[in-house]
Order: sequence, then C-alpha cells, then structure tokens
Amino acid sequence: MEAQDNRSWHEIAGGVTAPRGYRAAGMAAGLKPSGAPDLALIVSDVEAVAAGVVTTNQVKAACVTYDQQILEQGTPVRVILCNAGQANACTGEAGIEDNLAMARSIAEELGIPSEQVLTASTGVIGQRLALDRLQAALPTLVDRLSYEGNESAARAILTTDLTLKTAAYEGVIEGQTVRVGGIAKGSGMIHPQMATMLAFITCDAQVEATLWRQMVRRVADLSFNQITVDGDTSTNDLFLAMANGQAGGPLIQAGTDPAAVLEAMLAEAAIKLAKAIARDGEGATKLLEVQVVGAAQAEDARRIARVVTGSPLVKSAAFGCDPNWGRVLAAAGRAGVSFAGERVDVYLGPFQLMAAGKPLAFDRKAASAYLRENDPVVYRLHLHQGNGEGIAWGCDLSYDYVRINAEYTT
Amino acid sequence: MEAQDNRSWHEIAGGVTAPRGYRAAGMAAGLKPSGAPDLALIVSDVEAVAAGVVTTNQVKAACVTYDQQILEQGTPVRVILCNAGQANACTGEAGIEDNLAMARSIAEELGIPSEQVLTASTGVIGQRLALDRLQAALPTLVDRLSYEGNESAARAILTTDLTLKTAAYEGVIEGQTVRVGGIAKGSGMIHPQMATMLAFITCDAQVEATLWRQMVRRVADLSFNQITVDGDTSTNDLFLAMANGQAGGPLIQAGTDPAAVLEAMLAEAAIKLAKAIARDGEGATKLLEVQVVGAAQAEDARRIARVVTGSPLVKSAAFGCDPNWGRVLAAAGRAGVSFAGERVDVYLGPFQLMAAGKPLAFDRKAASAYLRENDPVVYRLHLHQGNGEGIAWGCDLSYDYVRINAEYTT
Repeated sequence: MEAQDNRSWHEIAGGVTAPRGYRAAGMAAGLKPSGAPDLALIVSDVEAVAAGVVTTNQVKAACVTYDQQILEQGTPVRVILCNAGQANACTGEAGIEDNLAMARSIAEELGIPSEQVLTASTGVIGQRLALDRLQAALPTLVDRLSYEGNESAARAILTTDLTLKTAAYEGVIEGQTVRVGGIAKGSGMIHPQMATMLAFITCDAQVEATLWRQMVRRVADLSFNQITVDGDTSTNDLFLAMANGQAGGPLIQAGTDPAAVLEAMLAEAAIKLAKAIARDGEGATKLLEVQVVGAAQAEDARRIARVVTGSPLVKSAAFGCDPNWGRVLAAAGRAGVSFAGERVDVYLGPFQLMAAGKPLAFDRKAASAYLRENDPVVYRLHLHQGNGEGIAWGCDLSYDYVRINAEYTT
Repeated sequence: MEAQDNRSWHEIAGGVTAPRGYRAAGMAAGLKPSGAPDLALIVSDVEAVAAGVVTTNQVKAACVTYDQQILEQGTPVRVILCNAGQANACTGEAGIEDNLAMARSIAEELGIPSEQVLTASTGVIGQRLALDRLQAALPTLVDRLSYEGNESAARAILTTDLTLKTAAYEGVIEGQTVRVGGIAKGSGMIHPQMATMLAFITCDAQVEATLWRQMVRRVADLSFNQITVDGDTSTNDLFLAMANGQAGGPLIQAGTDPAAVLEAMLAEAAIKLAKAIARDGEGATKLLEVQVVGAAQAEDARRIARVVTGSPLVKSAAFGCDPNWGRVLAAAGRAGVSFAGERVDVYLGPFQLMAAGKPLAFDRKAASAYLRENDPVVYRLHLHQGNGEGIAWGCDLSYDYVRINAEYTT
C-alpha cells in the first residue's frame, strides 16, 4: 500500500526551511505562563501559492475564519504567524480584531501587505490574545528569521506535545530539485482546550495555483484527516501549505507526471507529520496503524480504517496487548459502510486472526507479544469487495489518557 | 423537557410481567462457564403484535437477521427466547442453523409455530451456541414460566452488568388500565465481546400493528439510540417489543389521544431502561445527561446531545469533576450540525458557564462540587436557533474503563 520502493525522492533534514526561500524563527514572547517558546514565524522570500484545510468544527477560532477568507481570495501569501498560549476562540468581535491586529503588525514589521499573512493560534479557548506582548516581540522575532530556523519555529508552536514534529523530502522533478518541508503540533492535550492540530508545509516547487490547492486537499484526506486520538476536533485546527516556486523549472500542471511526483512527496511529508501527531496522542504508548484493503472504494476503506483506529475498545485492547479481532470487526461494522461480514479477513501484524468472517485458531501468546513489542502495531482488514484501500493512524488508550484529562482542572 | 407533571400514568413493579398475559422465566442452563443464569424466556399468553429495532452494525449475529425476517413478515409473535454466554455472531452457516434450531425447539416445547418465536443472543463473538445444553434446559425453563417471573428473566440476560434493569408503568387509556414493562441488559463489557445492548418490552394495549411498529421505532430514537458508553456498537444489539391486547378496550389507532398517551408511556419505560444501561457503563461513576434545546430541529438536538455525551474529553472531565465548558462546546461543534457558535449558552446543573458563545465567570469550586456530588450530572446547551430539543445519556470515563478493557485477555 506504500509505494516506497519506486520513490524517486528521499528524506532530508530542515523541515519548513528545507525548501529554498523560506526563513523561520520561534521565540518566547511571554504568552505562555511557563515562559516556553510561544511565537513562531515562517516567511517566504517571495510570494507563494497558498492552500489550506481548516477545522470542520462549527465553532471556529478568529484565525480560522480569517485564513479562510485569505485562502478563498486565492491571492499569494508570504507569511504564517502562529502563537501558542491563547486560542483566541470564543472571544467574539474583540477576538476578530485582535487577530487582524496580529496580522497587520507582522505585515508592517516585514513591509508587506497584511493580505499576505496567514495566522494560527493554539492554547486556551475563551482567552484573548496577549496582543501587547505579541506585538512587542515581533521585531525580535523578525530579527531571528533564519534559513536554518526550522527547529526554533517547530518548538514554538507546541503546547503540551512531548515531541518536536518536522519532516522534509527532496526529489528531482523534470531536472529540478524540489523540496517539501513541514512542522506540526498535535493533540498532547494535558490542557484540554489545547487539542489543536496545526501543520504548516512549505514547498519550493513552481506549481499551478489551482493544482496546489487540489493537491493539498487530497493529501489532507490521506494524512491529517486519517488520524484520531479521541475523536474530538478543535476550534483551531489548521493545515496551511505554501509553494513559492524557488526550485525553478517549468510550471507543474495538473494531470502530468511531475504533478503526480510532487503530490506523492507532499503526501509523504503530510503522512509523516500526521503519524507523529497520532503517536504523540495523550498517554499513548504506541502508534496504531489500521490498513483496510478490498473495499468497494477508497473512501469506504479510509472511513472503516478511521473508525477502527478510533474505537475505545480497540485502543484499550492494544494498550492491554490483547489480540482481540472481535473488537476490530465490530468497529468496522459500525463505520456506515456496507460490506459482507462473511468475507472479511483480519490480520494483526503477521498473524491472521480471522478468515472469511470466521475466527481462526492463532497463537495468542505470540500475537500478544507482537502488540507488546512493536510500535507501530498494524491491523489489516481485507473486505474482498473491490479495490479500495485506506490507512488510518491512532494510538492506544491508556490510564494516562484518563489521568491527563481527568486531573486537569480548569 | 420532560412533561412529568401532566403524566396520567405512574411507575409500578413487575417489569415484563407487569402487563397482563405475559409469563417469564430465567435459569442457569450451563451456557456460561460461571454457572450464572444464562437463559431467559418471555411468553405472551396470546398472539402479540411485534416490533423491533436491530443493530446497525454491518456484522449481524444469526439471531438478528432471523428476527429481522420475522418482523418484516409482520405476523404475530408470542415468544422471546434469549441466551447469554455465546453471541452466535461470526459463526457462518452453522450459526444460522443453530439459531433456527433454538427457535424450533422452544416452539415445539410450547406447541406453537416457530414463526412466533423471536431469539436473542449475547456473549462471546465467534462462539457457537451450546445448543445441546440449551435444548436440554427448555422443558425446565417452560416449567418455570410465571406471571411473576420478571426478575428471574431480567437476571438471565445479563452478562457483565452490575445491576438488574427493569421498568414498568401503568396508565388509564380510554377507561382501560394499560401497562408497559421491560427488561434490559447493557454494556458492562468486562468481557469485551459482550457489548450487546438488549431490551425487551411487553405491553398489554390493544394497538394497531403498524402504529405499534412506528411507535417502537420513534421511541428507540429517543431512548436506546440516545445512549452511548464508548461509541462501539455490537453485532447483537436488539430492542424487541410485543403488544398483546390483553388490556382490552377499543383498538388504539394512529393520530389519536390514546395513541399519544401509549407512546409517552412506552417512551418513559424505554428511557428508564436506557438510562440504567448508560449508568451501568464500564467503570462508570456517574450518569451524564446532556440536554440540547433551541436547535433548528429535534434530530439536530439529539445528534449534538449524543456527540457531547460520547466525547472522551467531556467524559473524562466529568470523571475528574472539571466544569469544563470548552470541551462541551468543541464536541457540540463537531456533531455535523450547523449552528451559530456566538449564540450558544452552556449550563452545568445550576451553573451557567457560557452565554452567547462567550465564557462567563462562575464559581469553579462550586461547579466542581456539583460534578462530585450529583448523579446524574446534567449539561444543558441552548443554541438559540429554533425549537428542536433532544437529550442523550452516557457515563464518565474512568481508570476502570481502561483497566476493564485493557486487562481482559481473549
């Protein structure tokens, strides 16, 4: 299911600053009570094609509705400015004004139009931006912008994440070296209102604007939309992607081989970030990967994979190293996808647990050991209905998830 | 939201044997390794109008597809026979034969056509019925049938439930005393494959068959379809309801006041059983009730109530006694229902946490104490979009949920 063997690209270091023409920086602006880094900036040297996918939550933070407007205009952008500490969601008119002020201040500092700025916020819902401190920090932040600034920016977007999440890939497309890079933050929700998923991807390909937007949307469906920690979505979730053309070469257009290679690179970067977010889910001890093949169509497969990955029973069985096929099958059955239960095969790593809808005898001790010793652990369902395939990622459900979410007091 | 003040009926004892003309019995037939009661029988003295709602899971146990066929025929039934211990799901052709044999054996024992028998199974998925033991027990079971047999039957359908679940109501409809009674088992899933929800309701009203089926479906949407423990559904979920006319009086027909009263009584019985199931969720320390008012339509309100009730973040906040409105609002926002976030009011018991989409100052200590000291705890959202109302029930997410589901090994 992963065509890694014929890839014409490879992983590199550098995250969002790996592609040419991007600088980044992060700093502690005093927005978080802890004094940890809390303000991140990514700047393209030249205008870039922008695309994005925003939270489907009905309750949207000020930055989300603002970015939607910018993205719908279809005009080029140069900047992503992200704060951590205050979500600026459920803050009414004042929050909208604060967000605009944030965009205008960084635009002024950089000497560009504010329409070229995208914003992102993560932190406590209902809290307004600490705008004064944010604005006061901007000259220093701009001063620190660097072509090696990836890690500094990646750190400043985190809230309660345990790990830094960055990815970058380099490939050759029609003779040009093209790079895709990204940073992300996930759902380490020790503070429960900080469930936000953020991902920022940069790319130096010269790509047709409409195609870039389509690619970003399709790739989101294969990556960030296929991860689940606990099914809850945030008011602030954002995936933003810029392509600034600094790789040069002919314009990459829809329906061509170069477009296919670029999209595959973009997908790999997005999937790497998405898996890192899932693995860093609250209290997680391992990454779960659920592969579904043989569905009537790909969307069916993706949906079943998501539901199995998100099942509390499957998640707690994984935590307890219980090779339980019944929970996997029951979760698949409630995904809202029609399939014949009597055809389904279920695998856990190298063990086949079920054939044609009936349980097999298998070595339970060895299967349990597989769950204990592997990270990720892979469940695989074959529906024998068609050729649709899909993968989803999640994490196990541990005592720590409950502890983290129960013991926090607002 | 509950018109309890103008109710013309009241609660009584007796469960499924409270309505006239129903006998019940339960016994230990040796189907469960523990030796606990595991076979239950409900018999109407005369033919009854039957209706039911079955699991939406794509993977259905043999009893479920069998009952669907009986119910679709629309012919009268007299019997519900339920075993606990083996789910008879994922058992292929042999399982279908076993289920048919179960129905035929009890029909023979009672001297009625097997088409008048509904069956139900709960227990381990993938295990075939212990048919020999089941058949050997039937003469004794029939011998024990009693008009006071409710508790014995209610006990024999349980698996890992901690509490017996029965309900009964009596009212006067057009001069006739009418009774509705029921038993249920829930999702005490210490053994994870025993997630089955079963509910059996009896009624002695003389009611038009099509109307009874419509009522049962509508009532299921207000009760059993509004509870959630962990979002997982079973291959064996069943809600079956018989009305045998033994109350006498004129036939109750659609669109009349008597029909409205009967439906309200049926709803109250079903909701009582549903709440008992939710309260007995694995590891639960309290019942959560989420009320949504002011939605554009009732289905929107019910959907939002379900999603909030099922949110792991809301559930763990309830366990931790954290009066967290952010999680409630964020869960409401991802229910797939369109509403204006800036209009929403959120209440927790007597505390208003949010007004018009913005957080209020409230006494956090007192609100936390409310969560600690009450069972059920009630969340209430007012969307200010229309007149749609809905309620859902669930339970909190505790360490014990994880322990129960992680430590079990198949």
